[in-house]
Amino acid sequence: MRLERDEAWSTLLTTDHGVLSTVHPERGVDSVPVVFAALDEGRLAIPIDTVKPKSTTQLQRAANIEHDPRCVLLAEHYDDDWSRLWWVRVHALAVVTDEVPAELRRFPAYAAPDAIVAAIVLTPTEITGWRATPVDG
Amino acid sequence: MRLERDEAWSTLLTTDHGVLSTVHPERGVDSVPVVFAALDEGRLAIPIDTVKPKSTTQLQRAANIEHDPRCVLLAEHYDDDWSRLWWVRVHALAVVTDEVPAELRRFPAYAAPDAIVAAIVLTPTEITGWRATPVDG
Repeated sequence: MRLERDEAWSTLLTTDHGVLSTVHPERGVDSVPVVFAALDEGRLAIPIDTVKPKSTTQLQRAANIEHDPRCVLLAEHYDDDWSRLWWVRVHALAVVTDEVPAELRRFPAYAAPDAIVAAIVLTPTEITGWRATPVDG
Repeated sequence: MRLERDEAWSTLLTTDHGVLSTVHPERGVDSVPVVFAALDEGRLAIPIDTVKPKSTTQLQRAANIEHDPRCVLLAEHYDDDWSRLWWVRVHALAVVTDEVPAELRRFPAYAAPDAIVAAIVLTPTEITGWRATPVDG
């Protein structure tokens, strides 16, 4: 079943992990696993960190966004039991900022003051989703 | 730690699920959860099915590939314990084919003869990966 935007959003916020895909001028697409947190006004923040993964990957991601801000964050629950599947896809415009949102400090691995060096802030343009069966089903 | 190509490939094949991202002419990027199976010659196959998700998504994915064959398949293991994280990223060129590889029949949900209507076949151009800690570590 398709999820309406409100339901897709609330489903998205049941997790803090997804795959961020950006436009790469030569490769077409780049994808990387990320964690995220919700900000106000329906925005999302993704840390650019010194903990994981590698700095080259981090820099490529930021370079892609500066070249083309269009991106997709896909979050999902995968399960061998396909009746429990869901996914939420957020099309968004991204900006890289040095002002690290406080919402990203809640991840234990980022507790050190210098663990996050910047952030990617997503402003969603479209939120869609799908769930195999209703929550109460 | 970075994974060499051989190790990235063998790690990829420990799962059968990932996120496929394709180039969309207006949106920049599209992403969708997929299952996959390895074919010969280092290729990968992804079913276009009638089971999940919605046909409109399936059609968009195929249209994207026909417009631009560059894509990324990202597979990963996410875990609250970040010492157990890994991911593998496959940059590839994709083609849509009506000849459904037999390797895709092993998914129980696709046992019905008409469950898979076509397939996306990926020819990898680059395989990279990352693991938080060595397998024996």
